[in-house]
Amino acid sequence: MAMEGYRGFLALLVSALLVGFLSVIFTLIWVLHYREGLGWDGTALEFNWHPVLVVTGFVFILGIAIIVYRLPWTWKCSKLLMKSIHAGLNTVAAILAIISLVAVFDFHNAKKIPNMYSLHSWVGLTAVILYILQLLLGFFVFLLPWAPLSLRALLMPIHVYSGLFIFGTVIATVLMGLTEKLIFALPSYSSLPPEGVFTNTLGLLILVFGALIFWIVTRPQWKRPKEPNSVLLQPNGGAPEGVESSMAMNFGNVDKSDSELNNEAAARKRNITLDEAGQRSTM
Amino acid sequence: MAMEGYRGFLALLVSALLVGFLSVIFTLIWVLHYREGLGWDGTALEFNWHPVLVVTGFVFILGIAIIVYRLPWTWKCSKLLMKSIHAGLNTVAAILAIISLVAVFDFHNAKKIPNMYSLHSWVGLTAVILYILQLLLGFFVFLLPWAPLSLRALLMPIHVYSGLFIFGTVIATVLMGLTEKLIFALPSYSSLPPEGVFTNTLGLLILVFGALIFWIVTRPQWKRPKEPNSVLLQPNGGAPEGVESSMAMNFGNVDKSDSELNNEAAARKRNITLDEAGQRSTM
Repeated sequence: MAMEGYRGFLALLVSALLVGFLSVIFTLIWVLHYREGLGWDGTALEFNWHPVLVVTGFVFILGIAIIVYRLPWTWKCSKLLMKSIHAGLNTVAAILAIISLVAVFDFHNAKKIPNMYSLHSWVGLTAVILYILQLLLGFFVFLLPWAPLSLRALLMPIHVYSGLFIFGTVIATVLMGLTEKLIFALPSYSSLPPEGVFTNTLGLLILVFGALIFWIVTRPQWKRPKEPNSVLLQPNGGAPEGVESSMAMNFGNVDKSDSELNNEAAARKRNITLDEAGQRSTM
Repeated sequence: MAMEGYRGFLALLVSALLVGFLSVIFTLIWVLHYREGLGWDGTALEFNWHPVLVVTGFVFILGIAIIVYRLPWTWKCSKLLMKSIHAGLNTVAAILAIISLVAVFDFHNAKKIPNMYSLHSWVGLTAVILYILQLLLGFFVFLLPWAPLSLRALLMPIHVYSGLFIFGTVIATVLMGLTEKLIFALPSYSSLPPEGVFTNTLGLLILVFGALIFWIVTRPQWKRPKEPNSVLLQPNGGAPEGVESSMAMNFGNVDKSDSELNNEAAARKRNITLDEAGQRSTM
């Protein structure tokens, strides 16, 4: 990575961390200062764990997990270590997301409020279920060493797409959740009291955090480089850890490997075409 | 495009069109059957144009505009024609989005409801403003013939990213809007009456439409091929229309051109690296 690109990456990474951290702080200030505080007693204090845990785990930690392969100072670390960190962060996020659901179901049941009627709840529960499936798939196919390379190559584009889709859906769900809570709990919302301004700003912060993570993860020049010793042209090549590094988090290269599995001759031809396209796009 | 890839593309395109069309139909059924109907008189009938125009223009037509370069039967058409269609669809979507705002402001003013207090309104107005800027930038830089290739190459990754970010933000805003309207207008929402189930389903349809558009537009193998006669290695090459075709809608190749402008030697080296990566990712 050239120095200029490195500085750009660092600036965006620091911005993302700052905005993500601010989102968590804003959520805490919201529930501690404007709302009833935190507790685990079936009252609104228990409900308040719901936004805190979602924004901490399902937004901030998930966002960091998405870009963890892109940190240049980790490129010397083994792929297995980085995958373990990616899986570990996502496991923490999933646990926090599940506890956040327990908090809201407990609160609803104690207050005799029906569960699962709102669009927020439908989309949110779908996101949590997809996230758990994504985590299990990632664990068995990409972290454990037994899945064949062909299966990994087939599933990697779906894994990358699903991860980003779940992240985007979670952010949309958080914005719906803020909307719901403000309408239910802040009767003066339409006169825009300080809590309304503050919580709307929290919503914007979370949206900006998502925008920064999406920008960072879709820049091809900030992708983790391939392992130098991976030999992927050989079907039984000796470096299974290297296969994802050529595909993870890069829409442009992801699917090629999939179709290439079916027809190596077509694949070689396509690589030549890709090279020609690369030459032609140079000015 | 191989026949198998073509069939996969067609299946996804038909699904996207179907789900997008269903979303528009569901919105119409919602306002005509469950709500008060349509009109332009400052009452709820005028408000109801808001969801109809947003889902038709800002979701469905914008979604189609995003994938229009990917339709294989248009690859024989000139790039200028396709850009005009892309710009035309986006112009229609922007006009519908603006009329949808007029409808809701008119309704609020007639009913003495404050404007611009909700998170939905903050995010939604931001999306409309960004969309208009995006449209103007696209018109002056990419459609009119006068912008230098270097400027086009610099702005294309931002144009692609912004377009997808705006589309995702619009969908999140629609989900917030449905949430707001259901809480305000359907006191029995929590007992999940038919209108609640129907409108929650509409929200899911819009989310699935977004998911399909995002999948279609991020598959590198479904990208419009480069113009065969473009000569982009020459800084004053005679085919300015071809420059975007190598970059549009492909995260993987987009940013390369930008940095390559600064250093052609580095660019050539990178193309070789890209080719090697392509070879290595083949199994």
